[in-house]
Amino acid sequence: MAELIVLKLGGSVITHKDRPMTPDMDNIRRLAEEVAEAGTRGLMIVHGGGSFGHTVASQYGIAEGLTSGDQTIGFSKTHQAMVELNGLVVNALLRASVPAVAVAPSSFVVTERGRIGAFSFEVVRRLVELEMVPVLYGDAVLDGVNGFSILSGDQLAAFLSVGLKASRLVFGVDVDGVYTSNPKLNPDASLIETLPLGRLGEMVDVGRALTTDVTGGMLGKVMEAAAAVEAGVEVIFVNALRPGAIFKALKGEHVTGTVLMR
Amino acid sequence: MAELIVLKLGGSVITHKDRPMTPDMDNIRRLAEEVAEAGTRGLMIVHGGGSFGHTVASQYGIAEGLTSGDQTIGFSKTHQAMVELNGLVVNALLRASVPAVAVAPSSFVVTERGRIGAFSFEVVRRLVELEMVPVLYGDAVLDGVNGFSILSGDQLAAFLSVGLKASRLVFGVDVDGVYTSNPKLNPDASLIETLPLGRLGEMVDVGRALTTDVTGGMLGKVMEAAAAVEAGVEVIFVNALRPGAIFKALKGEHVTGTVLMR
Repeated sequence: MAELIVLKLGGSVITHKDRPMTPDMDNIRRLAEEVAEAGTRGLMIVHGGGSFGHTVASQYGIAEGLTSGDQTIGFSKTHQAMVELNGLVVNALLRASVPAVAVAPSSFVVTERGRIGAFSFEVVRRLVELEMVPVLYGDAVLDGVNGFSILSGDQLAAFLSVGLKASRLVFGVDVDGVYTSNPKLNPDASLIETLPLGRLGEMVDVGRALTTDVTGGMLGKVMEAAAAVEAGVEVIFVNALRPGAIFKALKGEHVTGTVLMR
Repeated sequence: MAELIVLKLGGSVITHKDRPMTPDMDNIRRLAEEVAEAGTRGLMIVHGGGSFGHTVASQYGIAEGLTSGDQTIGFSKTHQAMVELNGLVVNALLRASVPAVAVAPSSFVVTERGRIGAFSFEVVRRLVELEMVPVLYGDAVLDGVNGFSILSGDQLAAFLSVGLKASRLVFGVDVDGVYTSNPKLNPDASLIETLPLGRLGEMVDVGRALTTDVTGGMLGKVMEAAAAVEAGVEVIFVNALRPGAIFKALKGEHVTGTVLMR
């Protein structure tokens, strides 16, 4: 496959995270335009759940696996919430003339204790070869051990980057990158522009970096991204709330953010 | 796997076929109730596209394969139209307390010249084992030879029945079953209650049975169902517009319709 970029758009960027099932349509439309302008050959997008997936998933305890029959309705509702959010993203991309195609993770991925095991790249690889842009998302999926699990968009984006030998993995998040501590809680937190994975424990206040996000906050993203870094993928975190940042990151231009290093 | 029934709901039953993108919510809700009452263990549902999928697909010539770049937008829009219709069906089933789970064919099926080749049964099999009801649909899918194709719900339903060794395949259509001719065009057409496949050419006016449906009319359905009949699946066509017919067919009770025989 020719050069591939994987773009992960955080749930907190495309939804209002504190209001259940509320998309941030202004951001979705702006990001669709930035993607269109940057060029869409060799591009794959994965987005998070924000206030769509997480709200329903936590209501039914989907991330904890299948323990009661009532949860089957919740499993389906979590997926439907994600399908709805995905439809908004895909339609915004189509309106910006991006040949975006929805791909539902739960229709073909079964995890083992929450981690992707066997995975068929056939559909996403062919879509990119045909110059279309697959749009996947964090999803409620079946799990071989626990019945259900939540497959985070972060895990999926990193997995796709490694499996398809992407040249770059761009995480569009709601802060400027990885900080020494959580910048939303700690005013002394400072942005780390280059983060060698081996120095993670020393540079980041790991305890404070964690958030209550069920799929992990920034630290969780860095941990997921580590596999991509090890595989030689260039991984960068940028602030997708800042107009132009995603455009620049996709084009490979200089942009404020955090680059992960081996 | 324990006993399995595959239910195919025709697009002309769940949509107003002559009005673009118009669901028939009364039928969808009534059918969801009938499914719930009949019991949902060991059940899989496949629905057609009706005025959702077919409208967009024919606008962009998706069934003819990929011949121009503009079609990639149409491919995505066809799928999105089906996702929307599927969401209405799944939500109606969830409201009737059926643990229905959407499964997107285009996310894991690649056809070869329009026919299903390699196919992973893992997700649908596991869903049924966990007592959930997979809900699939006719879809725009990637094709190894032609780029794109339209995978009809009829082909998919028959394929699932054979692959998962279903005991029964119920086609819910908008007429009472298979007629000697097209009952909508020919007032002399009479219902065939038992149709041995070997006598098809002699019993059915094949020319008149064809309709303009891009996935084939009743004859197309019978041809798709033939593989299931050969594999030992009990195949019955019933009128899903008649209240109670789908309930009876799912329960195995006597109902007006056409039973296919070897």
